[in-house]
Amino acid sequence: MAWGNNVLVGQSGGPTAVINASLAGVFESAKGLHCKHVYGMQYGIEGLLKGKLVELDSYLDDKMEIELLKRTPSSYLGSCRCKLPQPDVDERPYKTLFGLFAQYDIGAVFYIGGNDSMDTIAKLSGYGAAIGSDVRFIGVPKTIDNDLLGTDHTPGYGSAAKYIATILKEVICDSSVYDIRSVTVAEIMGRHTGWLTGAACLATGPDCAGPDLILLPEHPFDEEVFLAKVAALEKTKHNVIIAASEGVKNKDGVFLCDLVSTAGQLDAFGHKAVLSGTSRYLADLIRVRLGCKTRAIEFSTLQRCASHLASRTDITEAYQVGGAAVEAAAEGQTAKMCAIHRLSSQPYRVATELVDVAQVANCEKAVPAAWLTPDGMQVTAEFEAYARPLIQAELTPIYINGVPRHIHLG
Amino acid sequence: MAWGNNVLVGQSGGPTAVINASLAGVFESAKGLHCKHVYGMQYGIEGLLKGKLVELDSYLDDKMEIELLKRTPSSYLGSCRCKLPQPDVDERPYKTLFGLFAQYDIGAVFYIGGNDSMDTIAKLSGYGAAIGSDVRFIGVPKTIDNDLLGTDHTPGYGSAAKYIATILKEVICDSSVYDIRSVTVAEIMGRHTGWLTGAACLATGPDCAGPDLILLPEHPFDEEVFLAKVAALEKTKHNVIIAASEGVKNKDGVFLCDLVSTAGQLDAFGHKAVLSGTSRYLADLIRVRLGCKTRAIEFSTLQRCASHLASRTDITEAYQVGGAAVEAAAEGQTAKMCAIHRLSSQPYRVATELVDVAQVANCEKAVPAAWLTPDGMQVTAEFEAYARPLIQAELTPIYINGVPRHIHLG
Repeated sequence: MAWGNNVLVGQSGGPTAVINASLAGVFESAKGLHCKHVYGMQYGIEGLLKGKLVELDSYLDDKMEIELLKRTPSSYLGSCRCKLPQPDVDERPYKTLFGLFAQYDIGAVFYIGGNDSMDTIAKLSGYGAAIGSDVRFIGVPKTIDNDLLGTDHTPGYGSAAKYIATILKEVICDSSVYDIRSVTVAEIMGRHTGWLTGAACLATGPDCAGPDLILLPEHPFDEEVFLAKVAALEKTKHNVIIAASEGVKNKDGVFLCDLVSTAGQLDAFGHKAVLSGTSRYLADLIRVRLGCKTRAIEFSTLQRCASHLASRTDITEAYQVGGAAVEAAAEGQTAKMCAIHRLSSQPYRVATELVDVAQVANCEKAVPAAWLTPDGMQVTAEFEAYARPLIQAELTPIYINGVPRHIHLG
Repeated sequence: MAWGNNVLVGQSGGPTAVINASLAGVFESAKGLHCKHVYGMQYGIEGLLKGKLVELDSYLDDKMEIELLKRTPSSYLGSCRCKLPQPDVDERPYKTLFGLFAQYDIGAVFYIGGNDSMDTIAKLSGYGAAIGSDVRFIGVPKTIDNDLLGTDHTPGYGSAAKYIATILKEVICDSSVYDIRSVTVAEIMGRHTGWLTGAACLATGPDCAGPDLILLPEHPFDEEVFLAKVAALEKTKHNVIIAASEGVKNKDGVFLCDLVSTAGQLDAFGHKAVLSGTSRYLADLIRVRLGCKTRAIEFSTLQRCASHLASRTDITEAYQVGGAAVEAAAEGQTAKMCAIHRLSSQPYRVATELVDVAQVANCEKAVPAAWLTPDGMQVTAEFEAYARPLIQAELTPIYINGVPRHIHLG
């Protein structure tokens, strides 16, 4: 394929364990198509607007660097949370960007990210079409939240799900060590959708009973129903395990964590306390109302950056969508996102496909209501059948001196 | 070796990623010496006092089970936090226990644990000697805290250190993703000693600058000196990383986390809030006084149960001290702990040795003052040289269906 000019790639939004695998896919695919230079935006579109871009060819000129890139969490190029204005409101950023595209002879732009990043691709391709530019714009999906429309799932989700399932198994082992009754509440990321929290079901197996309750943002939290359920569980087993989304809301749509911070607490310095606290709220609720020993654990940032426990399926797919995005651009496509289409779950088979990026941008895909049990406190076998293939297999870190080796720009 | 009778083994105190490897070492060594039965105390000495013991031979009769045992976190037999009374104050538990030893024809008792467990071994062997019993009592060291006297280090520490170093590296990658200045405070376990927090230095390498500051309980925290240091760091780098022990105290000996909870906060239910909060305290302090964006991360329970990231060196040594304890008992030793003696650090070589358990019980080993920098906010190269060998190599989990397989009693 004749493709004389250069390409530009950026990463945006929250990092994941495999966003750099998509970058590797874009890079190697572009080099395979004989692009002269692959440029990277530093800190996404925000950095690019300040003229921050880097020629990647000299940084990634060895297969070893590609292998390390696939195993390095967070965004190799840096990221941003930046939304472009509508061009009819403010055209200046577009002029700056298309000026840079011309200056660097950019034939195609790839943006690896979630909803907001697809909005960027939609706006850039719309503006490009309006001014008659022939630069092509393709979105590469990425988010641990798995809330993107138009794709069976998003790269990043599988690794976060594998991390959540694995450490929940370990926490469950830990919770049963003493001969006492206890309730453990594990708080899992996902403010608006329950894909990550639902992945707690993957802890379940012949050696692990898994979480007793799974609370998703999709189902309104009812305190009394919940307490009755916990009380009933407490009667039948020593250690009750609850996986709760940070985004669980009551029937008035108020986040449980906001119920904590609206209690008017001050931090040690007299300022209003900012307590991230769905798990703490639930643990306190159970302790106060049911009088049992409780423990709250936040799974925290590690959910998005635990590359030491990445899913090989996820890494492979992240790499593939990056590569397929480049091929699509080379074939003349633009204003598309390179999605994953599931052909079958057993055996698990997928293919990449292009979807209209405008249909993806700014939308949010929730867990289907049918994948929750009627009481809204567990996920069904359909959820597990959907998620289980995404956490299969591992990509062993390259351990040097006892810790995984990463790669950094510069 | 002729050893006609049975042995009994228990696990005590907080779980670790490798305490079950010591159990495997005891079990396999005892079977190798043709012990008829290996009994396990369920929930330690506390469970044993209630008559809870189990014959392990039928549960661990296959090499596969031993391999899974080595990879299962937490205590396979269950644990307790129980201290025996002095026999002259209350002889009843001793009568119960020695009655059980006679009933089950126990020739030797092995107790895998920390300071308190060595106290149990010391008391049992003392009482046994006083009544002329020939049951032998050997302690097997275990604690992630690494605060046991008489041994170069304790099994459990290396794996916790490897986990801390690895996830700190990942958190550091994550912290630099946006083009903004920030301070990240990672809170690490170890209420009384700084061994675990010091292990944060192991994140440092050619691909990672490591933590800028390391705060141990061994050095009194001075707010103004600390803030001046953070302010100076903030001028030279975008992302400041601080590793802080949960046990950091001010010069009056007050834990920083207690400074948080003494602010008189109430939880959402009107009860006094229990905030574990050294990292939150420090993050708030920096935010309020220096006006920068801060983030607090608790490394939490995973430090003691992340068997998916265990150190192979640690697992091997945990197994070895278990085995050596059995050999020592078979040779007639009692009232001893099976310690690890370091022969050299480069190359790393160790041997097991027996130490008098009475000299270990109830003591606590702090990080030597010489291993902290003069300002008390970093560890020295000596610390790293000590700790680095302990995190070397891995024991890959046996992944089934995407998650590590464990083994449970019963």
